[in-house]
Amino acid sequence: MRTIDWADGQIHLIDQTRLPAELVLLHVTELDPLIDAIARLAVRGAPALGVAGAMGVAMLAFRHEGDEAAIRSGAARLRAARPTAVNLAWGVDRALARLVEGRDAVLAEALAVRDEDIAACAAMATRGADLTRALVARERVRAMTICNTGALAAVERGTALGVIGELLARGVLEEALPLETRPLLQGARLTAWELAQMGAPFRLLPDGASASVLARGLADICFIGADRIAANGDTANKIGSFTLSLGARNAGVPFVVVAPESTVDLATPDGGHIEIEERGADEVTSIRGVRTAPEGTRTLNPAFDVTPAALITAIVTDRRVIRLDRGERPSDPILG
Amino acid sequence: MRTIDWADGQIHLIDQTRLPAELVLLHVTELDPLIDAIARLAVRGAPALGVAGAMGVAMLAFRHEGDEAAIRSGAARLRAARPTAVNLAWGVDRALARLVEGRDAVLAEALAVRDEDIAACAAMATRGADLTRALVARERVRAMTICNTGALAAVERGTALGVIGELLARGVLEEALPLETRPLLQGARLTAWELAQMGAPFRLLPDGASASVLARGLADICFIGADRIAANGDTANKIGSFTLSLGARNAGVPFVVVAPESTVDLATPDGGHIEIEERGADEVTSIRGVRTAPEGTRTLNPAFDVTPAALITAIVTDRRVIRLDRGERPSDPILG
Repeated sequence: MRTIDWADGQIHLIDQTRLPAELVLLHVTELDPLIDAIARLAVRGAPALGVAGAMGVAMLAFRHEGDEAAIRSGAARLRAARPTAVNLAWGVDRALARLVEGRDAVLAEALAVRDEDIAACAAMATRGADLTRALVARERVRAMTICNTGALAAVERGTALGVIGELLARGVLEEALPLETRPLLQGARLTAWELAQMGAPFRLLPDGASASVLARGLADICFIGADRIAANGDTANKIGSFTLSLGARNAGVPFVVVAPESTVDLATPDGGHIEIEERGADEVTSIRGVRTAPEGTRTLNPAFDVTPAALITAIVTDRRVIRLDRGERPSDPILG
Repeated sequence: MRTIDWADGQIHLIDQTRLPAELVLLHVTELDPLIDAIARLAVRGAPALGVAGAMGVAMLAFRHEGDEAAIRSGAARLRAARPTAVNLAWGVDRALARLVEGRDAVLAEALAVRDEDIAACAAMATRGADLTRALVARERVRAMTICNTGALAAVERGTALGVIGELLARGVLEEALPLETRPLLQGARLTAWELAQMGAPFRLLPDGASASVLARGLADICFIGADRIAANGDTANKIGSFTLSLGARNAGVPFVVVAPESTVDLATPDGGHIEIEERGADEVTSIRGVRTAPEGTRTLNPAFDVTPAALITAIVTDRRVIRLDRGERPSDPILG
């Protein structure tokens, strides 16, 4: 089953807020439910958001055929559903650029975004596993990761977790070490579920344990995804990624970003220019409906943080490996 | 109401696992329920554990008067209820040393441990607030903290949170920034509850957000408690403390340990000699009874980590301020 797909003129997507308790497939035919699904993270992950953006425009193009103003205003609302994720806007823009050719062209573009994502994830998995062999001397690899960057974040396979899946397929994964990833627990709910599905050995840990587990020598490499990569390599990703990178640096453990080339935003010179989405208090003061803090508690709940390029060993995309530790930058020309 | 006290020949203690939903007072008259209360963290926090250890021995001395073997074997079991917390063993040993004088002497010693803790917390609050004025130029202070180190961790007032309370009393606290402190959420459940009780402005944040919130310049100082301080200043405390210290160092924010002198263990030369308690998977895979990870998920769940002395600005005890940043060490002689 794909995380997001197009069938019978509808967008089909797995409601990830229901995992791991139940597997629920949503059939989306209207803009508001799609924006709602994006806002409440029923669909999430940079690559999946790119596909959701493109398919959302295709849905609008079929629904409002001939009413270009309605399609464009709907696309603008969709584009703004999550401010930090560059892929959502990128997917919307790609599909919208074909609007002059008619609805079938828009749909063809959305399906191309989907198929390219599947191919891109396969390419990242191969490049990432090859890079791991270059960075890690230990034969069997213990890989720490945060959030969910697996098949559920893409269409198939995923980014950072796709690399871990490839290490498993090559028979060199000793253990995956997912962080639970508060507040929304994507690591506990989704990554643990995916790792169990793929039969990978793993142990889940609280976010705060990362630095000491790394300092104790229990992990060989860290992999994270990305929501936006600036031209200098600064990387916006799930809150906690920057914290994790400090622990990796302290322990001398390589810290690798895995994300499709579409996540690189050369218009953003550095992390200081990335808008950080602040989310509501309920995500912190309750967990899956159970209150954990007193009524009325105010929160600081930034959805993302920015890991500076200086703390990142390399960025793996579907087209290249950018060795930040050797002075390479995303703004370098892509060779080959 | 005191967190732990002696009344009518019983130990009275607040069951902290029930907060913030309800305030439940336990009346303990037997060893097994006391060990159980310690193991499941109904009573926790280094100073409170010292009092629990001493009062536990007093309870045994009354219950098994004349049967020294029963008292000593019970005390040995109590002493081992939590391995990392030096105060528990310290409280047990202090009370046990008076056993030759009879049960009343043991009880008098336990009550002295209680009263000394109340006085020690008052002294730490004053010293810590004075140190804050020396370390922080900003007039109104924004203080980040982890776990619960307030009145609920002691008998009254507490250690790190006691300093924050003193800053509030002096009218210079702009805001407290407690981390929720997974897995057991002492920050969300207990510290938020105490801050609300004292009328302090505060915002709760997920553990993973600490480094980026510090890097954004939103906090002026970090305060943590301690479960054990080695002779060189390495400090064992709640899991996540070391992670927080890396974020503080990255942001150039002072990182201060507040703990009674009894937490200093000169027999432990450095953090490498501190045993780290590994706790069960359920704490990570479910939250207050609600499952967050798939059935069968294995975990890494260390209860503590060790912050190296090099990342600690100062240690505040009831008797002195140890400026680690100036080369002072807990093993230095105590002056005055």
